[in-house]
Amino acid sequence: MVKKAIVILAEGFEEIEAVTVIDILRRAGIEVTVAALDELKVQGSHGITTLADIKLEKAGSDFDACVFPGGMPGATHLSVSKEVQGLIQKMNKEKKVIAAICASPALVLSPTGVLKNKSATCYPGMQTHFGQDTSYKTDNVVLDGNIITSRGPATALMFSLAIVEKLIGKETVKKVKKAVLAG
Amino acid sequence: MVKKAIVILAEGFEEIEAVTVIDILRRAGIEVTVAALDELKVQGSHGITTLADIKLEKAGSDFDACVFPGGMPGATHLSVSKEVQGLIQKMNKEKKVIAAICASPALVLSPTGVLKNKSATCYPGMQTHFGQDTSYKTDNVVLDGNIITSRGPATALMFSLAIVEKLIGKETVKKVKKAVLAG
Repeated sequence: MVKKAIVILAEGFEEIEAVTVIDILRRAGIEVTVAALDELKVQGSHGITTLADIKLEKAGSDFDACVFPGGMPGATHLSVSKEVQGLIQKMNKEKKVIAAICASPALVLSPTGVLKNKSATCYPGMQTHFGQDTSYKTDNVVLDGNIITSRGPATALMFSLAIVEKLIGKETVKKVKKAVLAG
Repeated sequence: MVKKAIVILAEGFEEIEAVTVIDILRRAGIEVTVAALDELKVQGSHGITTLADIKLEKAGSDFDACVFPGGMPGATHLSVSKEVQGLIQKMNKEKKVIAAICASPALVLSPTGVLKNKSATCYPGMQTHFGQDTSYKTDNVVLDGNIITSRGPATALMFSLAIVEKLIGKETVKKVKKAVLAG
């Protein structure tokens, strides 16, 4: 069965992080919904405007993975959204994949409690927002149970491939790596 | 003086390649114009729609660099555009930077003659479109005079940093690399 992921964009998202995830997951055959926190036209932190497929409030919650790009103030906008918080809690209960990169592990995931007793990484410096019950790592990508975290724009490709591996498997990762010349 | 670059998007552009260049050049302080070959809403080869700043026909030619992302059929669309061909010829005469990645060195640059007696790279396999007077290299990024070429999505960050180095210099590359965690 086709795996489904939702990538959530808020004003001020980091463009490389968002676009790399969407592109790589679609290359892997994952059905990706690009959801906007507010309006469908969403401007990133470097002035690139992307059109989302749907507003988050209409996207439902039938996904195998939810993904949160970083970027400021994008991550802050995501962090204060009740819908985002609710989605994370629901997906965590169902042991679905929750993936976040850059500022988002610290600002979006940590306050919801899903990083409790987990190892995680984030953009260097942002780990001050982790609770004491979260073990901060400096690896480019950290997988702990259903939670995948990563550090920043230069690790976005590795982060995306880690999501593909968790949802589908190593063989598909190999194919995608070959196609994008990362292998 | 602020350096100016134009990045040209056509339907079916490769999203990682385009967005990485725009993001990294703007991080470096380069004034980037995102121009659309046709309509301002441009859909990439993995279904991500980006809003361009301006149509190419209205963008003028006052730039220090022009950049061509790859992706299919994006590169094909760029290759048949008289405006794109004219811009490349003009910028080459003025020794301005011409940069292309993936399918675009082979499909967009080569037919205009600017790769004559130059070394260049492209997405593996596409080099059959190079003339016999172009020396195909398998490096991730090739700089030869005013021409910068690169291979594919996984080399987009290196490609972008090479453009920054050529337009501004190594110190700015260091700062950007540190900020995106590539250094």
